[in-house]
Amino acid sequence: MAKFDQTVTFRKAEVPGPHRAIVFIHGGAWIDPSNTPHDFDQLSKHLLDISNSQLPFSLYAVEYRLSPEYQHPIHIQDVIDNLAQLIQQEQIDELNLLGHSVGATLCWQILSLDSSIDFVEPSQLQLVRSKLKRCYLTDGIYSLKELLKEYPSYDYFVSKAFSKVDDYDDPRGSEIDSSLSPVIYVIHSYQDELLSLRQSNYFCAVLQELQQPYQVYLDDLGKHNDVYENLKLAQYVLYTMMR
Amino acid sequence: MAKFDQTVTFRKAEVPGPHRAIVFIHGGAWIDPSNTPHDFDQLSKHLLDISNSQLPFSLYAVEYRLSPEYQHPIHIQDVIDNLAQLIQQEQIDELNLLGHSVGATLCWQILSLDSSIDFVEPSQLQLVRSKLKRCYLTDGIYSLKELLKEYPSYDYFVSKAFSKVDDYDDPRGSEIDSSLSPVIYVIHSYQDELLSLRQSNYFCAVLQELQQPYQVYLDDLGKHNDVYENLKLAQYVLYTMMR
Repeated sequence: MAKFDQTVTFRKAEVPGPHRAIVFIHGGAWIDPSNTPHDFDQLSKHLLDISNSQLPFSLYAVEYRLSPEYQHPIHIQDVIDNLAQLIQQEQIDELNLLGHSVGATLCWQILSLDSSIDFVEPSQLQLVRSKLKRCYLTDGIYSLKELLKEYPSYDYFVSKAFSKVDDYDDPRGSEIDSSLSPVIYVIHSYQDELLSLRQSNYFCAVLQELQQPYQVYLDDLGKHNDVYENLKLAQYVLYTMMR
Repeated sequence: MAKFDQTVTFRKAEVPGPHRAIVFIHGGAWIDPSNTPHDFDQLSKHLLDISNSQLPFSLYAVEYRLSPEYQHPIHIQDVIDNLAQLIQQEQIDELNLLGHSVGATLCWQILSLDSSIDFVEPSQLQLVRSKLKRCYLTDGIYSLKELLKEYPSYDYFVSKAFSKVDDYDDPRGSEIDSSLSPVIYVIHSYQDELLSLRQSNYFCAVLQELQQPYQVYLDDLGKHNDVYENLKLAQYVLYTMMR
Protein backbone atom coordinates (compact mmCIF):
# COMPACT_ATOMS: atom_id res chain seq x y z
CA MET A 1 0.00 0.00 0.00
CA ALA A 2 2.65 2.48 -1.07
CA LYS A 3 1.30 5.97 -0.89
CA PHE A 4 4.11 7.40 -2.93
CA ASP A 5 5.59 4.92 -5.28
CA GLN A 6 8.77 6.15 -6.86
CA THR A 7 11.88 4.03 -7.15
CA VAL A 8 14.65 4.31 -9.71
CA THR A 9 16.43 1.26 -11.01
CA PHE A 10 20.08 1.82 -11.94
CA ARG A 11 21.07 -1.75 -12.53
CA LYS A 12 19.53 -5.17 -12.28
CA ALA A 13 22.05 -7.85 -11.46
CA GLU A 14 21.82 -10.98 -13.51
CA VAL A 15 23.89 -13.39 -11.55
CA PRO A 16 22.99 -16.71 -9.96
CA GLY A 17 22.39 -16.93 -6.24
CA PRO A 18 20.69 -14.60 -3.79
CA HIS A 19 19.54 -11.25 -5.16
CA ARG A 20 21.72 -8.64 -3.48
CA ALA A 21 20.86 -4.95 -3.79
CA ILE A 22 22.14 -1.56 -2.76
CA VAL A 23 19.39 1.00 -2.30
CA PHE A 24 20.34 4.65 -2.09
CA ILE A 25 18.38 7.14 0.02
CA HIS A 26 19.13 10.76 -0.82
CA GLY A 27 19.46 13.70 1.51
CA GLY A 28 18.47 17.33 1.19
CA ALA A 29 17.38 18.28 4.69
CA TRP A 30 13.89 16.78 4.11
CA ILE A 31 13.01 19.86 2.05
CA ASP A 32 15.29 20.27 -0.97
CA PRO A 33 13.69 19.15 -4.25
CA SER A 34 17.08 19.29 -5.97
CA ASN A 35 18.14 16.14 -4.09
CA THR A 36 16.48 13.14 -5.71
CA PRO A 37 17.06 9.43 -6.35
CA HIS A 38 19.23 10.62 -9.22
CA ASP A 39 21.82 11.76 -6.72
CA PHE A 40 22.86 8.12 -7.16
CA ASP A 41 23.59 8.51 -10.88
CA GLN A 42 27.31 9.13 -10.57
CA LEU A 43 28.00 6.70 -7.75
CA SER A 44 26.21 3.90 -9.57
CA LYS A 45 28.37 4.64 -12.63
CA HIS A 46 31.47 4.50 -10.45
CA LEU A 47 30.36 1.15 -9.01
CA LEU A 48 29.84 -0.26 -12.48
CA ASP A 49 33.10 1.18 -13.82
CA ILE A 50 35.35 -0.07 -11.04
CA SER A 51 33.80 -3.53 -11.22
CA ASN A 52 34.17 -3.60 -15.03
CA SER A 53 30.40 -3.87 -15.24
CA GLN A 54 30.63 -7.19 -13.37
CA LEU A 55 28.81 -5.82 -10.36
CA PRO A 56 27.12 -8.80 -8.68
CA PHE A 57 24.33 -6.76 -7.14
CA SER A 58 21.47 -4.50 -8.20
CA LEU A 59 21.33 -0.75 -7.67
CA TYR A 60 18.22 1.23 -6.83
CA ALA A 61 17.23 4.50 -5.19
CA VAL A 62 13.95 5.30 -3.44
CA GLU A 63 12.11 8.60 -3.21
CA TYR A 64 10.04 10.09 -0.41
CA ARG A 65 7.78 13.13 -0.17
CA LEU A 66 9.30 16.35 1.07
CA SER A 67 8.57 19.05 3.59
CA PRO A 68 7.12 21.55 4.12
CA GLU A 69 4.24 20.08 2.15
CA TYR A 70 4.55 16.84 4.09
CA GLN A 71 5.94 16.39 7.57
CA HIS A 72 7.35 13.57 9.65
CA PRO A 73 6.44 10.68 9.64
CA ILE A 74 5.70 10.83 5.89
CA HIS A 75 9.41 10.63 4.96
CA ILE A 76 10.08 7.39 6.79
CA GLN A 77 6.69 5.97 5.82
CA ASP A 78 7.40 6.54 2.15
CA VAL A 79 10.87 5.04 2.41
CA ILE A 80 9.61 1.91 4.15
CA ASP A 81 6.69 1.63 1.74
CA ASN A 82 8.98 1.86 -1.25
CA LEU A 83 11.60 -0.47 0.17
CA ALA A 84 9.00 -3.12 1.04
CA GLN A 85 7.48 -2.88 -2.40
CA LEU A 86 10.89 -3.05 -4.07
CA ILE A 87 11.90 -6.11 -2.05
CA GLN A 88 8.72 -7.89 -3.11
CA GLN A 89 8.72 -6.87 -6.75
CA GLU A 90 12.40 -7.57 -7.31
CA GLN A 91 12.61 -10.52 -4.94
CA ILE A 92 15.53 -9.01 -3.08
CA ASP A 93 17.23 -11.36 -0.65
CA GLU A 94 19.86 -9.01 0.74
CA LEU A 95 19.20 -5.33 1.27
CA ASN A 96 22.08 -2.89 1.69
CA LEU A 97 21.12 0.71 2.38
CA LEU A 98 23.24 3.70 1.48
CA GLY A 99 21.93 6.92 2.99
CA HIS A 100 23.39 10.38 2.55
CA SER A 101 22.67 13.22 5.00
CA VAL A 102 19.02 12.81 6.05
CA GLY A 103 19.08 9.63 3.96
CA ALA A 104 21.34 8.34 6.75
CA THR A 105 18.81 9.59 9.28
CA LEU A 106 16.14 7.55 7.54
CA CYS A 107 18.40 4.47 7.62
CA TRP A 108 18.90 4.95 11.34
CA GLN A 109 15.13 5.18 11.79
CA ILE A 110 14.72 1.86 9.98
CA LEU A 111 17.21 0.30 12.39
CA SER A 112 15.79 1.82 15.54
CA LEU A 113 12.06 2.53 15.15
CA ASP A 114 10.10 0.91 17.91
CA SER A 115 8.03 -1.75 16.19
CA SER A 116 5.03 -0.71 18.27
CA ILE A 117 4.81 2.71 16.63
CA ASP A 118 1.57 3.20 14.79
CA PHE A 119 2.72 5.18 11.77
CA VAL A 120 4.51 2.36 9.96
CA GLU A 121 2.93 -0.84 8.73
CA PRO A 122 4.50 -3.53 11.00
CA SER A 123 4.63 -6.16 8.24
CA GLN A 124 6.47 -3.75 5.94
CA LEU A 125 8.99 -2.74 8.59
CA GLN A 126 9.53 -6.38 9.42
CA LEU A 127 10.03 -7.29 5.77
CA VAL A 128 12.59 -4.53 5.25
CA ARG A 129 14.45 -5.44 8.43
CA SER A 130 14.44 -9.14 7.60
CA LYS A 131 16.46 -8.46 4.43
CA LEU A 132 18.75 -5.78 5.83
CA LYS A 133 22.44 -6.66 5.82
CA ARG A 134 24.47 -3.43 5.69
CA CYS A 135 23.85 0.27 6.32
CA TYR A 136 26.22 2.82 4.82
CA LEU A 137 25.59 6.14 6.53
CA THR A 138 27.40 9.05 4.92
CA ASP A 139 27.58 12.56 6.33
CA GLY A 140 24.42 11.91 8.26
CA ILE A 141 22.22 13.73 10.72
CA TYR A 142 21.52 11.51 13.70
CA SER A 143 20.52 13.81 16.56
CA LEU A 144 18.26 16.77 15.92
CA LYS A 145 18.97 18.18 19.37
CA GLU A 146 22.72 18.08 18.82
CA LEU A 147 22.24 19.51 15.34
CA LEU A 148 20.33 22.53 16.60
CA LYS A 149 22.86 23.10 19.36
CA GLU A 150 25.66 23.21 16.81
CA TYR A 151 23.72 24.95 14.03
CA PRO A 152 20.77 26.88 15.51
CA SER A 153 19.99 28.30 12.06
CA TYR A 154 19.20 24.78 10.79
CA ASP A 155 15.89 25.10 12.56
CA TYR A 156 14.70 26.61 9.28
CA PHE A 157 14.49 23.11 7.82
CA VAL A 158 14.03 21.01 10.97
CA SER A 159 10.92 22.99 11.84
CA LYS A 160 9.53 22.34 8.37
CA ALA A 161 10.13 18.59 8.62
CA PHE A 162 9.01 18.02 12.22
CA SER A 163 6.13 19.71 13.97
CA LYS A 164 8.22 19.31 17.10
CA VAL A 165 11.79 18.06 17.55
CA ASP A 166 10.65 15.48 20.10
CA ASP A 167 8.77 13.65 17.37
CA TYR A 168 12.18 12.35 16.33
CA ASP A 169 13.82 9.86 18.67
CA ASP A 170 17.39 10.76 19.55
CA PRO A 171 19.85 7.87 19.07
CA ARG A 172 20.83 8.25 22.72
CA GLY A 173 17.96 6.47 24.36
CA SER A 174 17.06 4.47 21.28
CA GLU A 175 18.05 0.93 20.47
CA ILE A 176 18.67 -1.06 17.37
CA ASP A 177 15.91 -3.60 16.93
CA SER A 178 17.10 -6.75 18.64
CA SER A 179 16.25 -8.94 15.66
CA LEU A 180 18.87 -7.14 13.58
CA SER A 181 22.60 -7.58 13.28
CA PRO A 182 23.36 -5.09 10.53
CA VAL A 183 26.87 -4.13 9.56
CA ILE A 184 26.98 -0.38 10.12
CA TYR A 185 29.41 1.86 8.24
CA VAL A 186 29.67 5.47 9.37
CA ILE A 187 31.29 7.59 6.67
CA HIS A 188 32.08 11.30 6.74
CA SER A 189 34.07 13.71 4.61
CA TYR A 190 36.61 16.04 6.18
CA GLN A 191 35.52 18.65 3.63
CA ASP A 192 31.85 18.58 4.58
CA GLU A 193 31.02 22.27 4.95
CA LEU A 194 27.43 21.73 6.13
CA LEU A 195 27.95 19.07 8.80
CA SER A 196 31.03 18.88 10.98
CA LEU A 197 32.15 15.55 12.38
CA ARG A 198 30.08 16.23 15.49
CA GLN A 199 27.02 14.31 14.24
CA SER A 200 29.01 11.25 13.20
CA ASN A 201 31.05 11.33 16.41
CA TYR A 202 27.90 11.61 18.50
CA PHE A 203 26.39 8.69 16.63
CA CYS A 204 29.52 6.57 17.09
CA ALA A 205 29.51 7.35 20.81
CA VAL A 206 25.94 6.05 20.98
CA LEU A 207 26.88 2.92 19.03
CA GLN A 208 29.69 2.37 21.54
CA GLU A 209 27.25 2.72 24.44
CA LEU A 210 25.10 0.08 22.73
CA GLN A 211 28.23 -2.09 22.23
CA GLN A 212 27.19 -2.20 18.59
CA PRO A 213 29.86 -3.40 16.13
CA TYR A 214 30.48 -0.78 13.43
CA GLN A 215 33.06 0.55 11.05
CA VAL A 216 34.09 4.11 10.29
CA TYR A 217 35.62 5.62 7.20
CA LEU A 218 36.83 9.22 7.36
CA ASP A 219 38.51 10.70 4.33
CA ASP A 220 38.64 13.62 2.00
CA LEU A 221 35.42 12.90 0.13
CA GLY A 222 34.54 16.41 -1.01
CA LYS A 223 31.89 18.81 0.17
CA HIS A 224 28.57 17.69 1.63
CA ASN A 225 26.88 17.25 -1.73
CA ASP A 226 29.99 15.90 -3.43
CA VAL A 227 30.27 12.89 -1.16
CA TYR A 228 27.62 10.84 -2.93
CA GLU A 229 29.44 11.26 -6.24
CA ASN A 230 32.88 10.45 -4.85
CA LEU A 231 34.91 7.64 -6.39
CA LYS A 232 36.48 6.77 -3.04
CA LEU A 233 33.03 6.22 -1.56
CA ALA A 234 32.21 3.85 -4.42
CA GLN A 235 35.48 1.98 -3.82
CA TYR A 236 34.77 1.71 -0.13
CA VAL A 237 31.24 0.42 -0.70
CA LEU A 238 32.39 -2.03 -3.33
CA TYR A 239 35.19 -3.58 -1.31
CA THR A 240 33.09 -3.87 1.84
CA MET A 241 30.24 -5.42 -0.20
CA MET A 242 32.69 -7.97 -1.59
CA ARG A 243 33.69 -9.16 1.82
CA MET B 1 73.37 -2.85 12.07
CA ALA B 2 70.56 -4.57 13.91
CA LYS B 3 71.35 -4.79 17.58
CA PHE B 4 68.74 -7.39 18.26
CA ASP B 5 67.96 -9.48 15.25
CA GLN B 6 64.93 -11.64 15.74
CA THR B 7 62.24 -11.97 13.14
CA VAL B 8 59.89 -14.87 12.58
CA THR B 9 58.75 -15.84 9.11
CA PHE B 10 55.25 -17.33 8.97
CA ARG B 11 54.82 -17.39 5.23
CA LYS B 12 56.75 -16.35 2.19
CA ALA B 13 54.52 -15.42 -0.70
CA GLU B 14 55.47 -16.85 -4.04
CA VAL B 15 53.45 -14.76 -6.42
CA PRO B 16 54.52 -12.53 -9.27
CA GLY B 17 54.59 -8.78 -8.82
CA PRO B 18 55.56 -6.57 -5.89
CA HIS B 19 56.42 -8.34 -2.66
CA ARG B 20 53.70 -7.45 -0.19
CA ALA B 21 54.10 -8.28 3.48
CA ILE B 22 52.24 -8.03 6.75
CA VAL B 23 54.53 -7.67 9.74
CA PHE B 24 53.08 -8.23 13.18
CA ILE B 25 54.35 -6.36 16.25
CA HIS B 26 53.26 -7.90 19.52
CA GLY B 27 52.20 -6.19 22.73
CA GLY B 28 52.75 -7.03 26.37
CA ALA B 29 53.14 -3.63 28.02
CA TRP B 30 56.84 -3.48 27.01
CA ILE B 31 57.61 -5.91 29.82
CA ASP B 32 55.81 -9.22 29.40
CA PRO B 33 58.02 -12.01 28.05
CA SER B 34 54.96 -14.17 27.39
CA ASN B 35 54.05 -11.91 24.44
CA THR B 36 56.32 -12.76 21.53
CA PRO B 37 56.34 -12.79 17.71
CA HIS B 38 54.49 -16.10 18.09
CA ASP B 39 51.43 -14.18 19.20
CA PHE B 40 50.94 -14.11 15.42
CA ASP B 41 50.76 -17.92 15.10
CA GLN B 42 46.99 -18.21 15.19
CA LEU B 43 46.19 -15.11 13.13
CA SER B 44 48.59 -16.16 10.39
CA LYS B 45 46.87 -19.57 10.33
CA HIS B 46 43.50 -17.83 10.03
CA LEU B 47 44.80 -15.69 7.17
CA LEU B 48 46.04 -18.76 5.33
CA ASP B 49 42.87 -20.74 6.03
CA ILE B 50 40.41 -18.11 4.89
CA SER B 51 42.40 -17.49 1.72
CA ASN B 52 42.63 -21.23 1.02
CA SER B 53 46.41 -20.89 1.30
CA GLN B 54 46.30 -18.53 -1.70
CA LEU B 55 47.45 -15.58 0.39
CA PRO B 56 49.24 -13.19 -2.00
CA PHE B 57 51.47 -11.68 0.67
CA SER B 58 54.13 -12.74 3.15
CA LEU B 59 53.69 -12.87 6.91
CA TYR B 60 56.35 -11.98 9.47
CA ALA B 61 56.63 -10.82 13.06
CA VAL B 62 59.46 -8.84 14.61
CA GLU B 63 60.81 -8.94 18.15
CA TYR B 64 62.20 -6.20 20.37
CA ARG B 65 63.96 -6.20 23.72
CA LEU B 66 61.85 -5.76 26.81
CA SER B 67 61.81 -3.67 29.96
CA PRO B 68 62.82 -3.40 32.71
CA GLU B 69 66.15 -4.71 31.42
CA TYR B 70 65.97 -2.28 28.50
CA GLN B 71 64.13 1.01 28.39
CA HIS B 72 62.80 3.37 25.74
CA PRO B 73 64.07 3.96 23.06
CA ILE B 74 65.35 0.39 22.75
CA HIS B 75 61.90 -0.97 21.83
CA ILE B 76 61.39 1.29 18.85
CA GLN B 77 65.04 1.03 17.84
CA ASP B 78 64.85 -2.75 17.72
CA VAL B 79 61.60 -2.68 15.76
CA ILE B 80 62.96 -0.27 13.17
CA ASP B 81 66.25 -2.20 12.97
CA ASN B 82 64.45 -5.45 12.38
CA LEU B 83 61.95 -3.99 9.92
CA ALA B 84 64.71 -2.34 7.88
CA GLN B 85 66.71 -5.55 7.82
CA LEU B 86 63.65 -7.59 6.86
CA ILE B 87 62.77 -5.20 4.03
CA GLN B 88 66.27 -5.52 2.62
CA GLN B 89 66.71 -9.26 3.07
CA GLU B 90 63.27 -10.15 1.72
CA GLN B 91 63.09 -7.34 -0.82
CA ILE B 92 59.75 -6.18 0.48
CA ASP B 93 58.02 -3.63 -1.71
CA GLU B 94 54.92 -3.02 0.37
CA LEU B 95 54.99 -3.06 4.15
CA ASN B 96 51.79 -3.45 6.15
CA LEU B 97 52.14 -3.29 9.91
CA LEU B 98 49.80 -4.95 12.36
CA GLY B 99 50.43 -3.88 15.94
CA HIS B 100 48.63 -5.11 19.03
CA SER B 101 48.57 -3.12 22.28
CA VAL B 102 52.04 -1.54 22.61
CA GLY B 103 52.74 -3.03 19.18
CA ALA B 104 50.25 -0.38 17.99
CA THR B 105 52.17 2.21 20.01
CA LEU B 106 55.32 1.21 18.17
CA CYS B 107 53.52 1.54 14.82
CA TRP B 108 52.36 5.01 15.79
CA GLN B 109 55.96 5.91 16.66
CA ILE B 110 57.08 4.77 13.20
CA LEU B 111 54.47 7.07 11.67
CA SER B 112 55.16 10.05 13.85
CA LEU B 113 58.79 10.04 15.07
CA ASP B 114 60.48 13.28 14.22
CA SER B 115 63.12 12.34 11.66
CA SER B 116 65.61 14.57 13.47
CA ILE B 117 65.61 12.38 16.59
CA ASP B 118 69.01 10.93 17.29
CA PHE B 119 68.11 7.49 18.59
CA VAL B 120 67.00 6.01 15.29
CA GLU B 121 69.17 5.57 12.22
CA PRO B 122 67.64 8.02 9.69
CA SER B 123 68.27 5.78 6.70
CA GLN B 124 66.52 2.88 8.42
CA LEU B 125 63.51 4.97 9.41
CA GLN B 126 63.33 6.34 5.89
CA LEU B 127 63.52 2.86 4.37
CA VAL B 128 60.74 1.55 6.59
CA ARG B 129 58.55 4.56 5.89
CA SER B 130 59.16 4.41 2.16
CA LYS B 131 57.60 0.93 2.01
CA LEU B 132 54.79 1.53 4.49
CA LYS B 133 51.30 1.19 3.06
CA ARG B 134 48.90 0.22 5.86
CA CYS B 135 48.92 0.29 9.65
CA TYR B 136 46.50 -1.93 11.54
CA LEU B 137 46.42 -0.76 15.15
CA THR B 138 44.51 -3.09 17.46
CA ASP B 139 43.65 -2.34 21.08
CA GLY B 140 46.53 0.08 21.23
CA ILE B 141 48.06 2.42 23.73
CA TYR B 142 48.57 5.83 22.14
CA SER B 143 48.80 8.35 24.97
CA LEU B 144 50.72 7.50 28.13
CA LYS B 145 49.31 10.51 29.92
CA GLU B 146 45.74 9.51 29.15
CA LEU B 147 46.55 5.92 30.07
CA LEU B 148 47.83 6.88 33.51
CA LYS B 149 44.86 9.15 34.10
CA GLU B 150 42.50 6.26 33.38
CA TYR B 151 44.59 3.52 34.96
CA PRO B 152 46.99 5.00 37.54
CA SER B 153 48.10 1.49 38.50
CA TYR B 154 49.54 0.96 35.00
CA ASP B 155 52.47 3.06 36.10
CA TYR B 156 53.92 -0.26 37.26
CA PHE B 157 54.84 -1.03 33.65
CA VAL B 158 55.07 2.46 32.15
CA SER B 159 57.71 3.39 34.70
CA LYS B 160 59.69 0.29 33.76
CA ALA B 161 59.59 1.10 30.05
CA PHE B 162 60.18 4.87 30.20
CA SER B 163 62.50 6.66 32.58
CA LYS B 164 60.02 9.51 32.33
CA VAL B 165 56.63 9.70 30.63
CA ASP B 166 57.69 12.80 28.70
CA ASP B 167 60.19 10.69 26.77
CA TYR B 168 57.19 9.47 24.82
CA ASP B 169 55.54 11.97 22.48
CA ASP B 170 51.80 12.20 22.94
CA PRO B 171 49.86 11.92 19.67
CA ARG B 172 48.28 15.28 20.46
CA GLY B 173 51.07 17.59 19.41
CA SER B 174 52.69 15.04 17.12
CA GLU B 175 52.31 14.74 13.38
CA ILE B 176 52.45 11.96 10.87
CA ASP B 177 55.55 12.34 8.75
CA SER B 178 54.52 14.40 5.74
CA SER B 179 56.11 11.99 3.28
CA LEU B 180 53.63 9.31 4.32
CA SER B 181 50.09 8.61 3.27
CA PRO B 182 49.44 5.40 5.15
CA VAL B 183 46.04 3.82 5.40
CA ILE B 184 45.35 3.70 9.12
CA TYR B 185 42.97 1.17 10.64
CA VAL B 186 42.06 1.59 14.30
CA ILE B 187 40.62 -1.63 15.69
CA HIS B 188 39.35 -2.30 19.19
CA SER B 189 37.41 -5.06 20.92
CA TYR B 190 34.37 -4.27 23.05
CA GLN B 191 35.49 -7.07 25.36
CA ASP B 192 38.96 -5.66 26.02
CA GLU B 193 39.22 -5.84 29.80
CA LEU B 194 42.62 -4.12 30.02
CA LEU B 195 42.05 -1.13 27.77
CA SER B 196 38.73 0.64 27.43
CA LEU B 197 37.84 2.45 24.22
CA ARG B 198 39.31 5.63 25.68
CA GLN B 199 42.75 5.15 24.09
CA SER B 200 41.36 4.41 20.63
CA ASN B 201 38.86 7.25 20.90
CA TYR B 202 41.58 9.66 21.97
CA PHE B 203 43.73 8.54 19.08
CA CYS B 204 40.86 8.97 16.59
CA ALA B 205 40.20 12.47 17.93
CA VAL B 206 43.84 13.32 17.25
CA LEU B 207 43.62 11.84 13.74
CA GLN B 208 40.56 14.02 13.16
CA GLU B 209 42.47 17.10 14.32
CA LEU B 210 45.17 16.18 11.82
CA GLN B 211 42.46 15.66 9.14
CA GLN B 212 44.07 12.26 8.62
CA PRO B 213 42.00 9.72 6.67
CA TYR B 214 41.45 6.56 8.69
CA GLN B 215 39.12 3.65 9.23
CA VAL B 216 37.77 2.16 12.42
CA TYR B 217 36.55 -1.33 13.18
CA LEU B 218 34.87 -1.97 16.53
CA ASP B 219 33.50 -5.39 17.25
CA ASP B 220 33.34 -8.19 19.73
CA LEU B 221 36.88 -9.48 19.25
CA GLY B 222 37.47 -11.09 22.62
CA LYS B 223 39.57 -10.02 25.56
CA HIS B 224 42.73 -7.96 25.21
CA ASN B 225 44.96 -10.94 24.53
CA ASP B 226 42.37 -12.78 22.47
CA VAL B 227 42.13 -10.06 19.82
CA TYR B 228 45.27 -11.09 17.97
CA GLU B 229 43.95 -14.61 17.59
CA ASN B 230 40.48 -13.60 16.48
CA LEU B 231 39.10 -14.86 13.19
CA LYS B 232 37.15 -11.64 12.61
CA LEU B 233 40.37 -9.66 12.84
CA ALA B 234 41.92 -11.93 10.21
CA GLN B 235 38.89 -11.45 7.97
CA TYR B 236 39.04 -7.68 8.38
CA VAL B 237 42.75 -7.56 7.58
CA LEU B 238 42.35 -9.85 4.60
CA TYR B 239 39.50 -7.97 2.98
CA THR B 240 41.11 -4.57 3.51
CA MET B 241 44.41 -5.92 2.12
CA MET B 242 42.56 -7.17 -0.94
CA ARG B 243 41.20 -3.77 -1.73
